[in-house]
Amino acid sequence: MAARLPQTPNRFQTLQVSRKTSIYRISSAPARRRSPGGRISCSLIEPDGGKLVELVVSDGPARDARRREAMGCPRVRLSRTDVEWLQVLSEGWASPLRGFMREAEFLQTLHFNSLRLEDGSRVNMSVPIVLAIDDAQKRAIGDHHRVALVDSNDRPLAILNDIEIYKHNKEERIARTWGTTAPGLPYVDEAIANAGNWLIGGDLEVIEPIKYHDGLDQYRLSPAELREEFSRRNADAVFAFQLRNPVHNGHALLMTDTRRRLLEMGYKNPILLLHPLGGYTKADDVPLSWRMKQHEKVLEDGVLNPETTVVAIFPSPMHYAGPTEVQWHAKARINAGANFYIVGRDPAGMSHPTEKRDLYDADHGKKVLSMAPGLERLNILPFRVAAYDKKQKKMAFFDPSRPQDFEFISGTKMRTLARNRESPPDGFMCPGGWEVLVEYYDSLVPAEDKKPREPVPV
Amino acid sequence: MAARLPQTPNRFQTLQVSRKTSIYRISSAPARRRSPGGRISCSLIEPDGGKLVELVVSDGPARDARRREAMGCPRVRLSRTDVEWLQVLSEGWASPLRGFMREAEFLQTLHFNSLRLEDGSRVNMSVPIVLAIDDAQKRAIGDHHRVALVDSNDRPLAILNDIEIYKHNKEERIARTWGTTAPGLPYVDEAIANAGNWLIGGDLEVIEPIKYHDGLDQYRLSPAELREEFSRRNADAVFAFQLRNPVHNGHALLMTDTRRRLLEMGYKNPILLLHPLGGYTKADDVPLSWRMKQHEKVLEDGVLNPETTVVAIFPSPMHYAGPTEVQWHAKARINAGANFYIVGRDPAGMSHPTEKRDLYDADHGKKVLSMAPGLERLNILPFRVAAYDKKQKKMAFFDPSRPQDFEFISGTKMRTLARNRESPPDGFMCPGGWEVLVEYYDSLVPAEDKKPREPVPV
Repeated sequence: MAARLPQTPNRFQTLQVSRKTSIYRISSAPARRRSPGGRISCSLIEPDGGKLVELVVSDGPARDARRREAMGCPRVRLSRTDVEWLQVLSEGWASPLRGFMREAEFLQTLHFNSLRLEDGSRVNMSVPIVLAIDDAQKRAIGDHHRVALVDSNDRPLAILNDIEIYKHNKEERIARTWGTTAPGLPYVDEAIANAGNWLIGGDLEVIEPIKYHDGLDQYRLSPAELREEFSRRNADAVFAFQLRNPVHNGHALLMTDTRRRLLEMGYKNPILLLHPLGGYTKADDVPLSWRMKQHEKVLEDGVLNPETTVVAIFPSPMHYAGPTEVQWHAKARINAGANFYIVGRDPAGMSHPTEKRDLYDADHGKKVLSMAPGLERLNILPFRVAAYDKKQKKMAFFDPSRPQDFEFISGTKMRTLARNRESPPDGFMCPGGWEVLVEYYDSLVPAEDKKPREPVPV
Repeated sequence: MAARLPQTPNRFQTLQVSRKTSIYRISSAPARRRSPGGRISCSLIEPDGGKLVELVVSDGPARDARRREAMGCPRVRLSRTDVEWLQVLSEGWASPLRGFMREAEFLQTLHFNSLRLEDGSRVNMSVPIVLAIDDAQKRAIGDHHRVALVDSNDRPLAILNDIEIYKHNKEERIARTWGTTAPGLPYVDEAIANAGNWLIGGDLEVIEPIKYHDGLDQYRLSPAELREEFSRRNADAVFAFQLRNPVHNGHALLMTDTRRRLLEMGYKNPILLLHPLGGYTKADDVPLSWRMKQHEKVLEDGVLNPETTVVAIFPSPMHYAGPTEVQWHAKARINAGANFYIVGRDPAGMSHPTEKRDLYDADHGKKVLSMAPGLERLNILPFRVAAYDKKQKKMAFFDPSRPQDFEFISGTKMRTLARNRESPPDGFMCPGGWEVLVEYYDSLVPAEDKKPREPVPV
């Protein structure tokens, strides 16, 4: 998979590439610019707000100075999820946001899923990116105008400047973000229920790039690095595929078919951004490290073409907030240079935590996405439903004229099969990828309970 | 109060008045138009979507034809609250909405508090205006493309055309509209909890103007009638005051002070729209008929100047949805010609139904209003806090340099005083207005429980 990583990313080189891009045909109007000579020159879609926000202090004396300053500030210790949001903000996925939200941004997010900029235009912003503190922390901060954000070892990660502290009305935040307040929402249990009753917003200066040292940092490409990579590859369209599950051949069909459609539309070099979510996920989702192994196998097995695919990790935590969250997933990819976004059935959805039904209507995600403020310039590609074609023995687009030939294999069914070390239907997933899944579920079983291993189809 | 009603409203006359309005100085840019001759001519603020929607079929053969057609359609019987919304829609308060919401409008309202128009612009729309039907009604409608909406006596009120039926997810609707799903929200109990599991949207043709025959129809001026009245009075600014409570001298101070500020800004003839809400209100609010009596006394007592005040009823039901609902209250007044909107502390708020606190932060209403999509051209006038000045013995703007001199008289306290036939501090409310309130609470007490009546200050 290393071949799909940027080869010596270099801003000067990228700039040169950008200058050569007059042959590009990008559909998004805001990306077209008329050069002084009158020729139309194009580049990747513009980040929200016109300029990609990057909040990491440059290496050298400035960084050392910030680290020293942080030592003299009141401290706020970040949770793992807070650090993930810090990375999201620091790299500009949430551009033009420059730090954890102040109240005006928080309220606009809750009520309008968008932020009004000074020029009157709107950018999409559907999930609150906020930092909670408790009463004791609020007292400790007192009249200070800035605080240091530190990790679990009290190592300073960032300074939050010109802070604003305001009430954390959890009930209202949850109701407006999820459209329910039912107990058992995973992100709420993880990051809100036990969080403090205050939110602290401000402008971030992040001391150094956020790294996790888990063997996967190489895949955590920032929006700037992804833009460089797309430019290096002379992409004239970038289509993003967000996922938090193993890739099966239905996904692959969809991605290859999207590329085919883009080529038909006249694009010469559409590049796929296969973009697994890397932040917090709920306990029964397959962990990131296993998913990355699985994606690697899918590429090795030739299901997707490495020449036209970039695999990278999207560092955001997962809300499971359906139509609200899919907007965030799409908006963040604009900032990474994607101008096409694939949306499937029930994006970012899950079962209702207390009722026997899906939490969201399966079609609301794509409907909301197509109408969302600030996403007008993103081309939304609605998912065609893929299912297992028992006649052709492969994943195919569902043909309503012969429904009896198709079998829908849900994520739950897939997980159950892998957990029981049973094989899925032939052609559902490439054998190498399936092997990784079986291995993962096997790793969860205590050694004494293990059954003798069945052969896996290869 | 009759003097404040339109004097023989007449569209031709209004048109003439509009032509004379080149001296108007309206601050909202969209209302300025350059006439062909190059002179700038101005008029009232434009309705949302550019044209005021009016959905009542004109009198005569067309009306009779619609009535006959309605007889042949499947019927949906409307509740009192449904009829109130029908009136709201029929008169264009929700312009450019042309009927009960279809799913695309419902989703945009829930997620964005605004609707995207075909030209890409946005109008505000924060509360769902929807019509619920149950399973049996859905079955009865079957494949029909239109339904008749009938009153409790099966009299046809309107035809809903090109209908769309979609799921009524009550939990999601409530959570996103109120920011809570706590039991005991008045509008939810009144109009949602027992409503059907489907919503039906479409384009309305309303057979005749909605009337209630309760002695108050004369005050139910439509947006078109209000616009005519403002034009007839040569208003160069219209400032709206939404209320659902009796007017006390703090309100009056605020309204007269607003007029003073507008005159200072250079307007020559600012007109106040004193606009009590006339639809559904919760059980412990003072009923509309008593409030109208009270408002009448306030004008008779000279607290407000009849020459520069129009009193009319806003026919909308009340949601008590705080920051979400205040947007609706403001947006509807744009359609009636108001370009200034007064917003106070905790607009459309109430106590949390199950916790000992206000449901909404008292400042969120005005903050959300100032940032709301589609309300950019409305001038928001934030309320200055008025309280009872014990030294001056009158309602005055709170002076933070001498807090000990001020007493805050809440709505609850006011109601308790009136209920106990006690007098409020001198200067809190004009005596005639207070008398009406005492009379109202007296009317609630069964005759045998009545204490001898104490004298009321006059």
